Amino acid sequence: MAKINSCFQDLKREYIFPIIERKTDELKQNHPNASIINLGIGDIALPLASSIAKAICQGVLEMQEKTSMKGYGPSDGYQFLKTAIKENEYKHLNIGADEIFISDGANTDTASIQELFCQSSIVAITDPTYPVYFDSNIIAGRLKNILFLPCTKESRFVPLPPKEKCDLVYLCTPNNPTGVALNKEELKAWVDYAKAHDAILLVDNAYAAFITSSDVPSSIYEIPGATDVAIEFKSFSKSAGFTGLRCAYAVVPKGVFAYFEDKKISIHSLWKKRQSIKSNGVSYPMQKGAEAVYTKEGQKETKSQVVSYLEQGQILLHGLKTLGHTCYGGTDSPYIWWQIPKGLTSWQFFDILLEKCHIISIPGSGFGKSGEGFLRLSTFTTKDKAEEALKRIASLNL
Amino acid sequence: MAKINSCFQDLKREYIFPIIERKTDELKQNHPNASIINLGIGDIALPLASSIAKAICQGVLEMQEKTSMKGYGPSDGYQFLKTAIKENEYKHLNIGADEIFISDGANTDTASIQELFCQSSIVAITDPTYPVYFDSNIIAGRLKNILFLPCTKESRFVPLPPKEKCDLVYLCTPNNPTGVALNKEELKAWVDYAKAHDAILLVDNAYAAFITSSDVPSSIYEIPGATDVAIEFKSFSKSAGFTGLRCAYAVVPKGVFAYFEDKKISIHSLWKKRQSIKSNGVSYPMQKGAEAVYTKEGQKETKSQVVSYLEQGQILLHGLKTLGHTCYGGTDSPYIWWQIPKGLTSWQFFDILLEKCHIISIPGSGFGKSGEGFLRLSTFTTKDKAEEALKRIASLNL
Repeated sequence: MAKINSCFQDLKREYIFPIIERKTDELKQNHPNASIINLGIGDIALPLASSIAKAICQGVLEMQEKTSMKGYGPSDGYQFLKTAIKENEYKHLNIGADEIFISDGANTDTASIQELFCQSSIVAITDPTYPVYFDSNIIAGRLKNILFLPCTKESRFVPLPPKEKCDLVYLCTPNNPTGVALNKEELKAWVDYAKAHDAILLVDNAYAAFITSSDVPSSIYEIPGATDVAIEFKSFSKSAGFTGLRCAYAVVPKGVFAYFEDKKISIHSLWKKRQSIKSNGVSYPMQKGAEAVYTKEGQKETKSQVVSYLEQGQILLHGLKTLGHTCYGGTDSPYIWWQIPKGLTSWQFFDILLEKCHIISIPGSGFGKSGEGFLRLSTFTTKDKAEEALKRIASLNL
Repeated sequence: MAKINSCFQDLKREYIFPIIERKTDELKQNHPNASIINLGIGDIALPLASSIAKAICQGVLEMQEKTSMKGYGPSDGYQFLKTAIKENEYKHLNIGADEIFISDGANTDTASIQELFCQSSIVAITDPTYPVYFDSNIIAGRLKNILFLPCTKESRFVPLPPKEKCDLVYLCTPNNPTGVALNKEELKAWVDYAKAHDAILLVDNAYAAFITSSDVPSSIYEIPGATDVAIEFKSFSKSAGFTGLRCAYAVVPKGVFAYFEDKKISIHSLWKKRQSIKSNGVSYPMQKGAEAVYTKEGQKETKSQVVSYLEQGQILLHGLKTLGHTCYGGTDSPYIWWQIPKGLTSWQFFDILLEKCHIISIPGSGFGKSGEGFLRLSTFTTKDKAEEALKRIASLNL
């Protein structure tokens, strides 16, 4: 008799996106002409850069020719893309091209990485958190092994190393949803913690391209010793408009080990094995597109997109502050963490913004208990829309 | 202290591809001018159909325009592709478009499906087998729960329902590696078995496009009652040359249930949840490419590729039989299961073919114990190469 994995029954977190979708649909029905501004989902608002589009199509055309056709690629990605990433993202860091594993998304990678580790691992996850770290560990049967690291105003929304021993630590920096990034000193404290406890840091760095603060490293590997304890996840999704294209990568240094009995086992080898068994890699044309991100034209186009999203962030941040609101993030990331007026829950304020301003946001409580009292605003929008959103918020007279 | 998932230590199967690669590299070093014929890996030999290439590029260009740009797509695929699959693959079958989940590969899907089920599930896997069913269950801790179904000459290499109770049954038909497909009666016996034991059939049907025998159904859902007990995995990889593009789908009917305590839980809902948590779907352009497979031009082009691979299969089959060899498969699939001369192991015969004929094959023992004494030949080749391979084999005077 087939029985389900009962851990699925432990996925009790509120699934916010279907609720947001339903509420938005209701609004559309009641106000068919409403001009809705979507500052909810963190999805790109600008079209694909033409240099990348050209490279993808060129890749497709190569596949159409007998002499340049491609079948299965390496499950961990083509050498040309790994080399381009090494040269551009890790030029002065001690990371080799062969420590880079191409994948179809940082979400996929951060969901899968826990498979390499013992079921009884103690897992530290921030509260609030991007949901996949939590959910993937729940499905794997670690509900009772999760230690939440509260990220509150008092700690600048930065997770601090706990007194307890943990085996795995998920860090998302720049953070989704709070928009705050860990600085050098804060990251160093985590590397020290990991070394002291033989723990492994799982660092989701999908928003590195948005960093503007000088004390925020663009990679955990800028911290000495991090190549012994940290795995980093990066993506072309937000930095180069790949949310609909799917290309990302995980960096698994050869210096990262975990134990089997008293033997040290290479996590790099384990991930390579896992990927070669479970994945057939990313399509050749998408990898050609990702390579084009690093051309002169690709850099110009994609950097201008990131700058545009950061500018909309500054417009929203400045506007909200002028209206007397308290906001965090937005400087090193495309997210603003808006402390909502006292006496309202995240969902209540979400409803007000949706119904009165026709603005979609995300209630902070959807990211965890400590998210209550906040809203996440995405700055993936255009200048016109950011300004219009502010006008509507001002008219609320909060 | 981070500890590994110790089940990775149970992956003791011989990894044949790295060995084949090493042996091939040695040959190339010793005979730099050798013209090697690769009948090993089951990868396409013909370039991408131009109608598909055009549709993919069209999709990319849409993403470049403000008015038609696309960000994240649905994690289970765009409606247009699900509808096209429903209309073309399941037109007269009781499968809805909403029971189809688009993914980046049948390998990914068959590796992930086991996550939905209880760790103590008894899992039936054929011997020989395509490795991912076995490996993904080993990683999930089911080493001791696997029941092997020997597929031998006596049963036409078809797995027969066992006396024992199983919860999950992996069937690959048309089969990789034996090349043999289950007929209607044989599939019906499995549906009956699943109904009798509340088991679920996990049917890898990635080679359906190669079926030529009239008594072999192109889908398990042609068997009455299968929508209550079977999940089917299909792919564009081999049917439309997508090995380097990555697009496939799983069919999870709403009638398939498994138990949680005494409650029946919908596997369709569970898979939808799993996919929405762990996947961000397949790129828009690839889904446009897959949709184009079903256009008139796409059908003409891709069917002619399949016919070509089947023709090479017939050339090889006929040639080997004329030389006095015994072969199976090749009629409903792109694989020939070659019973090798007595007294030689799979690897010994592999070495002879490689060294004396410069032909790469795959030793049957790499697919499991019952594969010993056989070689798998892939028919993904061209007519010239198939004929040249036969000439070289003839010159061996076996």
